[in-house]
Amino acid sequence: MTIRWLDEDEQRAWRAFLRMQSQLAGQLNRQLQADSGLSLADYEILVALCDAPDGRLRPYELQRRVDWEQSRLSHHLTRMQRRGLVGREECADDGRGAHVVVTDAGRSALETAAPGHVRAVRRLFFDQLTREDVAALHTLSTHVLEQLDQTPPG
Amino acid sequence: MTIRWLDEDEQRAWRAFLRMQSQLAGQLNRQLQADSGLSLADYEILVALCDAPDGRLRPYELQRRVDWEQSRLSHHLTRMQRRGLVGREECADDGRGAHVVVTDAGRSALETAAPGHVRAVRRLFFDQLTREDVAALHTLSTHVLEQLDQTPPG
Repeated sequence: MTIRWLDEDEQRAWRAFLRMQSQLAGQLNRQLQADSGLSLADYEILVALCDAPDGRLRPYELQRRVDWEQSRLSHHLTRMQRRGLVGREECADDGRGAHVVVTDAGRSALETAAPGHVRAVRRLFFDQLTREDVAALHTLSTHVLEQLDQTPPG
Repeated sequence: MTIRWLDEDEQRAWRAFLRMQSQLAGQLNRQLQADSGLSLADYEILVALCDAPDGRLRPYELQRRVDWEQSRLSHHLTRMQRRGLVGREECADDGRGAHVVVTDAGRSALETAAPGHVRAVRRLFFDQLTREDVAALHTLSTHVLEQLDQTPPG
């Protein structure tokens, strides 16, 4: 089977994209940590939970939202639980196991962190983009997501 | 200070971008693992080392390439060293500490993994994009990177 390697334009775009997303995540993470003591990973979990009805999700639903490996998610939740940001609630009613639920402290940590995080996202990302860039990013992300959603998870 | 929250277009683009990059990384990681036993993180380290002269970098250079937190990088390198993919070499000459160096096994693991990984990148990502999308992605990534490079690391 012949491999079509990436051509030069693709390779430049791919490397710039990878470097951009990794450095952006790194800087957003450092800003969040310094500002609020949350990591970007904590923030992502708290947003997913606070977006959910009653601030609770089953672990597999949470995993689908954040798309982390199961072991990473489970370790991360244990650490967040120790810090009082999330809790686990057994649901005796249906035997389908526990919910992960955001605590009051978790909600309040997210509310405190959000303004600084949004300012950083604006300064580092959106202020560098034109409206056309934003539209292009949305379109191309959506196209890639359509393909990803068709691929069965491994 | 008034916060300019993200408007609806920005929010949709931001969420699609985050979801796309996280799901893409998840699927590329699963494909790599299943295919070659390497994680995306291993792959990234191996590419950085194999791109460097003599396959070796000082830890701080490697850290700058991959932009991971120092503790994550250091733990990851320890695990890769245990698996024989990288080694550490003291440089007695200048007292500036060790190099991280790719081993023959690391180089050969990367060569074995690369064709399948590139096929997955093409199928999941580039096959979904037009030439204009690729150009837009390169431009916007470059603009964001210019800003990121100006921001002093935290």
